[in-house]
Amino acid sequence: MKLVGFTVPGENAVLVGRLDGDHIAPITDVKAFWDDPLPWVANARNETDSRRHVGTVELVPPVPESARVICIGLNYRAHAAEGSFTVPDYPTLFGRWTSSLTAGGQSAPVPAGEAGLDWEGEVAAYVGASLCDVDADTAREAVLGYSTFNDLTARKAQKLTAQWTLGKNGDRSGPMGPLVTSDEVGDLRDGLRVLTRVNGTVVQDGNTRDHIFELGEVLALISRTFTLNPGDVIATGTPEGVGYVRNPPWLLNAGDVVEVEVDRLGTLVTPIVDSSGRSTPSA
Amino acid sequence: MKLVGFTVPGENAVLVGRLDGDHIAPITDVKAFWDDPLPWVANARNETDSRRHVGTVELVPPVPESARVICIGLNYRAHAAEGSFTVPDYPTLFGRWTSSLTAGGQSAPVPAGEAGLDWEGEVAAYVGASLCDVDADTAREAVLGYSTFNDLTARKAQKLTAQWTLGKNGDRSGPMGPLVTSDEVGDLRDGLRVLTRVNGTVVQDGNTRDHIFELGEVLALISRTFTLNPGDVIATGTPEGVGYVRNPPWLLNAGDVVEVEVDRLGTLVTPIVDSSGRSTPSA
Repeated sequence: MKLVGFTVPGENAVLVGRLDGDHIAPITDVKAFWDDPLPWVANARNETDSRRHVGTVELVPPVPESARVICIGLNYRAHAAEGSFTVPDYPTLFGRWTSSLTAGGQSAPVPAGEAGLDWEGEVAAYVGASLCDVDADTAREAVLGYSTFNDLTARKAQKLTAQWTLGKNGDRSGPMGPLVTSDEVGDLRDGLRVLTRVNGTVVQDGNTRDHIFELGEVLALISRTFTLNPGDVIATGTPEGVGYVRNPPWLLNAGDVVEVEVDRLGTLVTPIVDSSGRSTPSA
Repeated sequence: MKLVGFTVPGENAVLVGRLDGDHIAPITDVKAFWDDPLPWVANARNETDSRRHVGTVELVPPVPESARVICIGLNYRAHAAEGSFTVPDYPTLFGRWTSSLTAGGQSAPVPAGEAGLDWEGEVAAYVGASLCDVDADTAREAVLGYSTFNDLTARKAQKLTAQWTLGKNGDRSGPMGPLVTSDEVGDLRDGLRVLTRVNGTVVQDGNTRDHIFELGEVLALISRTFTLNPGDVIATGTPEGVGYVRNPPWLLNAGDVVEVEVDRLGTLVTPIVDSSGRSTPSA
């Protein structure tokens, strides 16, 4: 089952719904959904009469405003190497705020001081239960689903200091595809291919079987410091092939289109616009 | 004027209210407040009949769930030096999620794998307007108010890798005092004394006039990468005197009480509990 977030014209509430082709069957508002997601998912498998065409709504990530978006910085050996990082002993975790997230098809603007945005195709996982001091198996089983994700990065801002936070939170810099429930995805260790294309050219071609730190282990580690909540998102890292380390560097600018395609999760398309697009929410 | 967030028993909504001594005059819910804070603040200066005693509510930070909590890591020369950091050319920014925040009087638990929590007394500032590519004067004038803040840190988790995020987001590790509106606080460059006490002993005694990076300049810098929203919070950094660099190290453990007192902002009291207190929301 695919889940999306959406808003209806004239209303503020963000709803979660089941996506079937071009139609959405509404489930409930995003906050209520994540308060207790499993019964909502079970119930959403039933048929419903009240469906909306996707063309009548605005898609948004199916994520509550309170969610943490935890990103693993270096989770593929070849990506660590291309950035001249040594492979760390623990997962390198940094944060996005939900206000940086957007849906597929929405534009991502390049801040005025940047030479462009860099791509980082990834798989994001959605925590489906409260996790406090749990083991890796418990954490892995609590993942409600997965989506495509592009951790679009403002490299200049990221590298101003040792902490990456600023450059990882640009306006609409975190596009996410629909959430695909775990039963349709399986275990990331079995391998999902992660492809990133820029204007049709493949720039990243990785596979989640090459993760250095396994998702369940990372969630368990996090849960020893803070309690993960339903709706929290973890971005599992990007494979090699990012733009800033190329010679010459290759960054995204207005007019470019970047796509992230992941097995079983679909394709996430993001058109790039210039900094004048920062204040407008869509392309 | 002092503003607090609060919830009423049996209701989920977080409200913002004006704090007058032991009473709160409700204003509106926290999301509506930050959608357009200035008229609410202006209106809240009027008298009201409907007041609640603080003993009948639960205080929470007056922060919307969507807010970014942006922390400046090294903003006092003596604190950078005590941690063996060189003074950076730009503000070192890292993130907290709002789910790590709590109000004064609530307990903060020590994660099981940590030797204790470290204190970091600070002044937090609340953004009161949308800020996109603005200059420092515009940003500074948009600050709605300030509060005491304690950036309680799980040092082991913070230092696992180069990114500090994990150790800066422990459960209830970000206590905040009431928001005091800017008209009652003035300019941080004129100096607010920041005192931290552990069990009554002064451990930090700094002053905001010693900030390396001035608040307006930092907000302007951030606004060049992402648009600051009303309700976003920026923690302006801690002065020298933290615990982990002492010989021997001094960290907070169950039974300790840590206080942050700031001129014009009041005193923030946080009792420390052990890891069994992670799942219970209050002391």
